[in-house]
Order: sequence, then C-alpha cells, then structure tokens
Amino acid sequence: MSEHTIKHILEKPRQFKNVDVTLRGWVVSNRGNNKIRFLTISDGSTVENIQVTFKGDNFDFKLLDEIRTGAAIEVYGTIVLTPKAKQPLEVLASKFVLLKNVDHDFPIQKQEINLETLREIPHLRHRTNLLKCVMLIRSTLALEIHKFFAENNFLNFSAPIITSNDGEGAGEQFYVNDGNKEQPFFGSNNATLGVTGQLHAESYAVGFEKVYTFAPTFRAEHSNTKKHAAEFWMIEPEIAFYDLKKVINFATKLLKNVIKNTIKKHPKEFDYLQNNVDETLLERLNTFIKKKLMVLDYKDALVELEKVKDRFENQDINFGLDFATEHEKYLAEEIAHGPIAIINFPKSFKAFYMYQNDDDKTVAAFDLLVPGIGELIGGSQREVRYEKLLERALEVGISKEELQWYLDLRRFGHAGSAGFGIGFERLVMYITGVDNIRDVIPYPRTSGNIKM
Amino acid sequence: MSEHTIKHILEKPRQFKNVDVTLRGWVVSNRGNNKIRFLTISDGSTVENIQVTFKGDNFDFKLLDEIRTGAAIEVYGTIVLTPKAKQPLEVLASKFVLLKNVDHDFPIQKQEINLETLREIPHLRHRTNLLKCVMLIRSTLALEIHKFFAENNFLNFSAPIITSNDGEGAGEQFYVNDGNKEQPFFGSNNATLGVTGQLHAESYAVGFEKVYTFAPTFRAEHSNTKKHAAEFWMIEPEIAFYDLKKVINFATKLLKNVIKNTIKKHPKEFDYLQNNVDETLLERLNTFIKKKLMVLDYKDALVELEKVKDRFENQDINFGLDFATEHEKYLAEEIAHGPIAIINFPKSFKAFYMYQNDDDKTVAAFDLLVPGIGELIGGSQREVRYEKLLERALEVGISKEELQWYLDLRRFGHAGSAGFGIGFERLVMYITGVDNIRDVIPYPRTSGNIKM
Repeated sequence: MSEHTIKHILEKPRQFKNVDVTLRGWVVSNRGNNKIRFLTISDGSTVENIQVTFKGDNFDFKLLDEIRTGAAIEVYGTIVLTPKAKQPLEVLASKFVLLKNVDHDFPIQKQEINLETLREIPHLRHRTNLLKCVMLIRSTLALEIHKFFAENNFLNFSAPIITSNDGEGAGEQFYVNDGNKEQPFFGSNNATLGVTGQLHAESYAVGFEKVYTFAPTFRAEHSNTKKHAAEFWMIEPEIAFYDLKKVINFATKLLKNVIKNTIKKHPKEFDYLQNNVDETLLERLNTFIKKKLMVLDYKDALVELEKVKDRFENQDINFGLDFATEHEKYLAEEIAHGPIAIINFPKSFKAFYMYQNDDDKTVAAFDLLVPGIGELIGGSQREVRYEKLLERALEVGISKEELQWYLDLRRFGHAGSAGFGIGFERLVMYITGVDNIRDVIPYPRTSGNIKM
Repeated sequence: MSEHTIKHILEKPRQFKNVDVTLRGWVVSNRGNNKIRFLTISDGSTVENIQVTFKGDNFDFKLLDEIRTGAAIEVYGTIVLTPKAKQPLEVLASKFVLLKNVDHDFPIQKQEINLETLREIPHLRHRTNLLKCVMLIRSTLALEIHKFFAENNFLNFSAPIITSNDGEGAGEQFYVNDGNKEQPFFGSNNATLGVTGQLHAESYAVGFEKVYTFAPTFRAEHSNTKKHAAEFWMIEPEIAFYDLKKVINFATKLLKNVIKNTIKKHPKEFDYLQNNVDETLLERLNTFIKKKLMVLDYKDALVELEKVKDRFENQDINFGLDFATEHEKYLAEEIAHGPIAIINFPKSFKAFYMYQNDDDKTVAAFDLLVPGIGELIGGSQREVRYEKLLERALEVGISKEELQWYLDLRRFGHAGSAGFGIGFERLVMYITGVDNIRDVIPYPRTSGNIKM
C-alpha cells in the first residue's frame, strides 16, 4: 500500500497499473446510483482530479450518496488503466472513510463562480480550478526564483521590514506602532513598513557581491487598480560591479529561466489557463523565452508615443513624462509585441540613488514593461559617487544625517552596483494571464480591504 | 580568462592549476614592500580569502601600498598551486584595477571587533569573518528549507502580513496605519502585523493538503533577551490529516535534513565557527542528526524539573507552569542532552486552536526545545471539532464573529491538520552557535532599536 500524490500518479499511469493506493483528498464531484458511484477527488497537488469508482456489496451506498462536493475522504483502492477514457486511469475502491462531510452551504460547487464573488471568500476560493492553478504556479515560481539565485551564487538576504528609512524618498508608507503613546516601541523614531529592501541590500552587495531579497513590501497607495496592492512580495537582486547593461541582461536571463522551468513543471495547469483564461498564453511566454529582449531609450520611446498620441488620455508626450500604464502597454504590446526595456529615464521622477548619466538630465535606470500589465521590473545602476549622490538626495529633500550610513558605503569599498525589483504578483499575473492582482495573492490587501 | 567565485576556486584547486582568472572583491589584508605585495581578497562567496601576489616591474607599488583593508579591487592573474603553504593556491597577478579605496576610518579591520560594537554598524559588520559565516549559512539554510518542502510536495503559501486577525489571541502586536486619521487606509478595521500565518495556512491546507509559509512575523514584546526580536522570520508548515505524532516526526525529519545539507555546503564556515564560537558545534549538530528525538510528556517533564527545583528562579513546579527558558534549557541540556519535544501541555496557556485531549486539561501541542536556546519550534494538532473550538475561543475572549471564517473551515471539509512554527533566526542561532539573535539577522529590530 503506497501513498502518492494525484499528480505523481497521473504523470506516470503505466507505472501505477494495478497498484494498491491510499488517497486522501476532497471530493470534487459525486454521481451514480445505489449500485455504482463515481467520485472525483482532488488532493491539491495538481489541478487534475482522479476518478474513484465504488461498486459491489462492500459499500454503504446511502452514505456514499450523502457525500457532498468539498468533503474530505480517504480511499483505499487499486489503480486500473482506462486507455479509452479521457483520464488514463481510475481507482477501483475497496474501502473508504468519510473523514468530514461539508455543510449544505459550501459555496464552491462544480460550476466556477465569478472572480469578484470569490474575492469575498479568500479562505475557500483556492478550491476552484482557476485559483488552484494560480497558487500552484505561484509556489513553483517562488522556488525556481530561489534556485536560480542560488545557482548564480547569490546570497539570500533579509532586509528589515520595519524601517526608519524611506527607500524611495516617496511617501505613501504605512506607519507602525505598538499602541503605547508614552513609551513608543521604537522611541522617537519614525517606524514604517519598508517599500523596498534595496538600500539595505546594497550594503550587503558590498562584501557579498551578489545578494537578493524576496520579501513582502508595502505601499499605502489608494489607487484602486487591477495591478496595485498595498502588500505584495518583491524580489530585489543587487549586484556589485554591475552596470545598467549587465543588470538588464541578468534580469532577462532570470525571467526566461524561471518561466521556462515553471511551465515545464505545470503542463496541466497551463493547459487549464490556456483553455479558460488566455488562449495565447503559452505562445506569448514561449516567444518571450526565445526572443532577444528589445531595449529602447526613453527618448526614442517618446518618439514612438508621439506618433500615436491621439490614442492616449495623457497626450503630453514630452521629456519628463512619467509613463502611465496606457503608454507602457502600448510600448510593450504594439512596439515590442512582448517585453521591452526602456532605459535612461529623466532623473526628475526617478529615485535619488540612480546613477546620473553624463547628459545631466537622465539616470541609468530601466523599466521592464510587459503586455497586459505594463511595468513588471524597475531597476538601475546605482550612483556610486559620494558627492553626486548627496547632492541629489538633498535636492529631493532627504537629509544628510538620515542618509549618512548609505552614503558611507561609498567611502567603504562600494565600487558600484546595479539591481532591480520584480513585483512577484505582477510576474504571477504575467505568467498565468490572470489580469487582477487580487486573484494571484491568497489574502489581498488593498485600500479598505483587509479580509481575515 | 574565466570568472569564478573564490569558493569554487578553493574547493577544486587542481582544476584551476595555471588557469587565468579575473577576480573582483574586497581587500582583507595588504602586506609586503615596494618589490613584492601580498593582498588577500574576499568576494563574499566563502569565509576564506585568496592570496594575490604582485611582483615584477609591471606594478605601481606606490599605489599598491596605499590600498587599504576594505578596498574594492579587480585582479587579473594566473592560479599557482602552493602545496606547501596553508592555502592550496595563490594568484600571481598580471594586472589590477583599484576600483575603490576606502577612507581611513573604515571600522572593519583585520582584528575582529566585539559583537556589541558591531551591532552599531549593521551596514558594515557582515564584512567580518563571523558575520560572513552566519549570513552565508543563513542563506543556504533558507534555500534548503524551501527545497525540502518542495521535495515533500508542499505548496509555498503567502499568508497576509497586515491582518485584521489576532492569531494567538495574545496581544503584543504592532498596529499599522497610513497616517490618515479621517479616512484610514483599512477603514474601521484593526490592522496589525501578523504574529503567525497559521490560521490562514490552515485554510490552504484544506485543499492543498501540505502548505508552508516562510515570512516575517512580528511581536511588540518589550523583553530584552538574547533570543527575542520584534521582527523575525518564521517557517510554518500546515499539514492536513496529520496528528501530533506525525507532525513531530515531520519536524524532526525537516530539521535533520536541512542541517545536514547546510553543514555539507559550508565546511569552511563551520570550521571557522567551531574554532571561534563553539568548539562542540559540529559534534552537537551531528549527534542531533543521528539520534532519535526524545519525546517527553509535559507531566513527566514536571517530575524531572521538580527533582532539581532548587536550581531555578521559578520553583513553582506545578501543573499549569508555563516553562521559562531556564526550565527549557534544563530539559534540553541535562535531560535530553540535545533537542527534546515536550508534548501535551495544559490548555490554560496554549492557543485556543489546539486540539483538546480527552483529559479535558491538556492540548495536543508540542514544543521542541534545544540546548542553549530553549524553544525552537512550537506546534500542535488543530482542534477540528467546531463546538469545542468555538467554546475555547469564547473562553479566551475571541468573538464568534471575527472567527467565523476560521470556524467555517470545519464546516467545509477541514478534517484535521497539524503544524508548527520554526523561528528561523533561532534555528540559525542553534546551527551557528551564535548566542544572540541580534547577530544572526542583518538589521535586527528590538525594543527601542531600529537602526537604519
């Protein structure tokens, strides 16, 4: 009697021919009569279910009839190959234990519910096929990212979450306190939730050379869009001695690698997404994996946007324009027909720590834009010249005192680095074709929404 | 001309005999005269350094003389085996570029500074040997944990960080707001930083069977001890259909596996720790890997403590005693001589969601205690009986309304589960022998302390 996941069994049907198995999982459907019953069961290892057939005098058919969708069950049986059926095999049950039936009002039934309604029940919605696919892919993607970094000699680094630094110099932060007004936990310090781990990661890149964070980050942005959440995971590599070109190459290599490996591990989940969410999904991803990434200077991107400016809400296409999603999508969808990196943005709307180009107007930054979403990655080469960095920090209103530790890295062996941040949930959206960030994170947090 | 990390080169010296290499890293020491110079260089891939020799007319010896500890440098050279020296090889330089020298006041010099002083400079202290070892091991350990879960068919699940739930029903939380008093970001909800992801993980264990979180958690505890931090990472697996015994076995298997693999990948770092921190370190870890875990009922643990109660500050050794660190250490260090699991604690001081044993006094909980630290893991089988769970929740003052979603899991196919939480930093402490949690997390947060 062996224990295997349904994924393992369905991947290698012949290997399991006539094998006795124990299955535990949840009932997806129940049909039949009081002589024969067919239950399909999911154990969450794959979006696919396994069919179990109950026949003969051994079974309590009255009890079997009462088993509802969602019930937990344990089944003992033998695997029988069914070459003519849609599924390659089924389980002929010899015994079962109904571990727990469900109440009548279990909201997840065989027919899929619309995503908006499902958002009201984040504790149950992963028991639908779509959410199951998304979460399985999300999990594998996270692992592939960790593995890729390890294979490339990166240190997994934990930036602090609660911080007294404002990494972007940008506001829109959450504040943290312990409710004690007389003796606040962090004294007179301004304790906020980190919006980036980058500044801290830079300190570790000096000494470890290649480091990355993979952690939750926070923005108190009230924007109610499909791609913004107040809490999201971010992947932030920081690499000493790298410049803008090298770091864009690295970002591309990273994305291609983890997407390729994730697709390989989830044929059934991608089938499902392809059939139910976006029929161009795999073609799109495979094209990205194969194609060279298009890189376009910000100034040249402006020229492209100017040509079709009538299409945009914001038609003020001039140097200094901080692209809105409409511009980003156009560049990715209609110029690149895939991901595109825009480089050398005006320094006016970019972070103070970015390397200042010789033109004195732009910084060595890049945004990686993808169809359907817009910005997936933002990154830059860092300003390593002490005086230039300080000057820019003061210009944007950051005091020398609070930045001294970061400036000091430049006095203590920081010879330059580059890095970027990938919004993990946006990457999951891109890879699954799901178009709302609320559907790719288990318990999404947005303005006014903190369910459970 | 190939690029390799110093770790790779030193691991397989013969393979690199006479190979031309490019090295980039930071200077650890600089000695010699104006005819010959020896620089040792670290690139952060290992605690070991590589020696580079500069001789001949090619070099600017004045510049070489000026290079200080901490400077960033790029070296081109040829690897020469040195079978008679302590190090198996050195690099004979043909060219170098001083990428960035350091100012005179760089605080990390060859002699190690005491840990307390280093805590004042978290942005620089990882450039000492000890912190380098700790952070390298921490990084590998994190990866091994992810890999172990993946190999055992676990879903990597992201519990929300900002939550309206109080998982432990225990207070000591941080509150989150966006500074907007009229229209708070999360409305009238009480937004706090999660103290555990367990309740949410349970919802995903129903459907995915095996899930885990690996994420930051927060406690606004004012306790100023060596093992408490306000922000720490926690690993929380949750496994459907598991009971107390099964989950303890799984925890043991997990720990043994990740410790074994981490030791294997870091021979030099463990050498360093063994020689500089704790000479019994490897013996201790290897004993744990080989030995069967000792499991002791809480009641039997009381008997052991009673025998030696004079040794303790808290001598009130009665049923209901919530062990203090002194008791935990005694049990691990002098009863088990290694890790020990204490099971079946009084329900009075344990969380409401733990499975209530038939004696009506205890719950199916376990604490895994280790020498030097005390509690490393806390876990339990979960209460799956709706009425029992509700009753206990009300007893400890949690309202039915706020808990309804969690209670409902029991109506919708939750047939039981078990899980636990590992304090990641405590595990790093146990594995490295470092005795203060502030030294195993890059930027530690404790009461009053939020540096950078």
